[in-house]
Amino acid sequence: MLGLGNVGRAVAERLVDEGWRRLVAERGYEPPELVAVGVRQPGRRRGIDLPESIDLSDDLAGLVGRDDVEVVVELLGGLEPAGSLIRTALAAGRSVVTANKALIASGGAELEVLTRQSGAVLRFEAAVGGGIPILAPLVRDLAANRITSVTGILNGTTNHILTAMTRDGADYAGALAAAQRLGYAEADPTADVEGHDAVAKLVILVRLAFGPWLAPGSVARTGISAVSPAEIAQAASRDEALKLLCRAHRATDGTVTASVAPTSVARGSAIGATDGVTNIIEIEAHPVGTVAFRGPGAGGPATASAVLADVLAISRGDGSSWASVPNGVGVGG
Amino acid sequence: MLGLGNVGRAVAERLVDEGWRRLVAERGYEPPELVAVGVRQPGRRRGIDLPESIDLSDDLAGLVGRDDVEVVVELLGGLEPAGSLIRTALAAGRSVVTANKALIASGGAELEVLTRQSGAVLRFEAAVGGGIPILAPLVRDLAANRITSVTGILNGTTNHILTAMTRDGADYAGALAAAQRLGYAEADPTADVEGHDAVAKLVILVRLAFGPWLAPGSVARTGISAVSPAEIAQAASRDEALKLLCRAHRATDGTVTASVAPTSVARGSAIGATDGVTNIIEIEAHPVGTVAFRGPGAGGPATASAVLADVLAISRGDGSSWASVPNGVGVGG
Repeated sequence: MLGLGNVGRAVAERLVDEGWRRLVAERGYEPPELVAVGVRQPGRRRGIDLPESIDLSDDLAGLVGRDDVEVVVELLGGLEPAGSLIRTALAAGRSVVTANKALIASGGAELEVLTRQSGAVLRFEAAVGGGIPILAPLVRDLAANRITSVTGILNGTTNHILTAMTRDGADYAGALAAAQRLGYAEADPTADVEGHDAVAKLVILVRLAFGPWLAPGSVARTGISAVSPAEIAQAASRDEALKLLCRAHRATDGTVTASVAPTSVARGSAIGATDGVTNIIEIEAHPVGTVAFRGPGAGGPATASAVLADVLAISRGDGSSWASVPNGVGVGG
Repeated sequence: MLGLGNVGRAVAERLVDEGWRRLVAERGYEPPELVAVGVRQPGRRRGIDLPESIDLSDDLAGLVGRDDVEVVVELLGGLEPAGSLIRTALAAGRSVVTANKALIASGGAELEVLTRQSGAVLRFEAAVGGGIPILAPLVRDLAANRITSVTGILNGTTNHILTAMTRDGADYAGALAAAQRLGYAEADPTADVEGHDAVAKLVILVRLAFGPWLAPGSVARTGISAVSPAEIAQAASRDEALKLLCRAHRATDGTVTASVAPTSVARGSAIGATDGVTNIIEIEAHPVGTVAFRGPGAGGPATASAVLADVLAISRGDGSSWASVPNGVGVGG
């Protein structure tokens, strides 16, 4: 495992917990063994006591190359060194699990080629919707459908701020400051409030729903920093709520359009009724109609659920997140 | 395939459609071949033109025993002859896909033993929540979680009736009659309005979430036929809505309790805001928190999505609905 922040701690706690290991063993899995954790400062205290047998090291590249490592769980975040480490692991045929939405959105096409060449597996369920099962259900459980649209709330920070502005009549600056005090927004909130984080998640959903990798920069994007209390009040007067709505649509000619923008939606709709840090993704498809997936879009324990699900999926032989290709058919993956 | 009603027609239409076959082929699947359809009256017109090459026969047992049948899709409904045909198929090592909630709820324990003995696969995603992906996400994508509760609306007919009583102030008898005219309730509505259908679905969810098969008769059950406009109005005055709520809970000592009963829930909650024939299932679990799955709980095309997903899952080697056991580990399944 690389990284021991909020998500990493929540993953590691379970991997070394006897109760958790019994739980997955009862379900027929061999409980995964955490052999090493890569961190930048091995001496720092982190609020987790790992057994002495687990190697804590700042030699991240060395850990990725260890012979006893079957799966690399990348939870460093950011483009580098995460990207180089993942490419090294995949090129060596190691399986990789990551929650790194920015990296997958910007480098997914290249990583996909790499895994198809090396036969390695890359899974990233935690990159979209935190703990919500969405990528695997989209690719596997809706495999018999033609997807026509993906719509939703993919960023908890902005939804928390917009919800506070709606409930308390706060202005944007005040709601952002309150969110920062509560830990729901970062000191530099740009990636969230300007919509970059939501765009990355939408790019990943578009790949799995429609096929192509979009360049993140090509997605129409408006953040929430210019949203005024007057706009919020106007929406409320129509029984609507302002949401940072992510939308992607595939036309019958195959053209895919995608956008992230503050949008007024009916308060009584599933999306309009989704408040606070909760995420929701609605899929429209034939023949199923509209199905929605809702839950915690961030947070260590919730995201750990998705990361661990990917580790278990690899032990089942499920392949990469983008493919439900049966074993031995097609180009692998 | 056995049965050519609403769901059967929607499944068959896709299996013989060139566009659908190309879609699943692009996703790496070998498109399944529909070889035969078992119906009680082969001469009857059904609003679907099947190619001449597909055998239409009333010899249901004969079809199940054919050497060229790998997967039996049972869409007859009811306990018999569906149960006998499924047992015959499983004993012969054939894979079975069914949408038959009553059969799985009452006979699931026996069928599970049978599949584990014969190595056959039995999948029933369509038995709960119609087109909503719920069983596979629960068993696979939430495999790293300890589930504590399952709550939801599992019957579209009763939710349609309760929604109409809330919106229009109709009494139960009037709302039922209107639902029958619209095709949302059957001429004999007992299975829906007395909660038997919801109990069957809850029994299946309990098995997958908590382990044990409950006897359907052991689940506390109250239908909606005694719900009065006064109760609905009283709930509305508290900004609540009356729902036929299905609830199952696992205590820390392992005790499982389950019930189906009209229950007043906050209008602004995900369950309280779910109206009409839509279904919703909320899962509470550690570490993920609360995740919800929402969508069309019935209807031919929606249910066909789940049936076809199961057929594709079998071709991927995914095993039975109750098990995410890796190949070759444990008792099979």
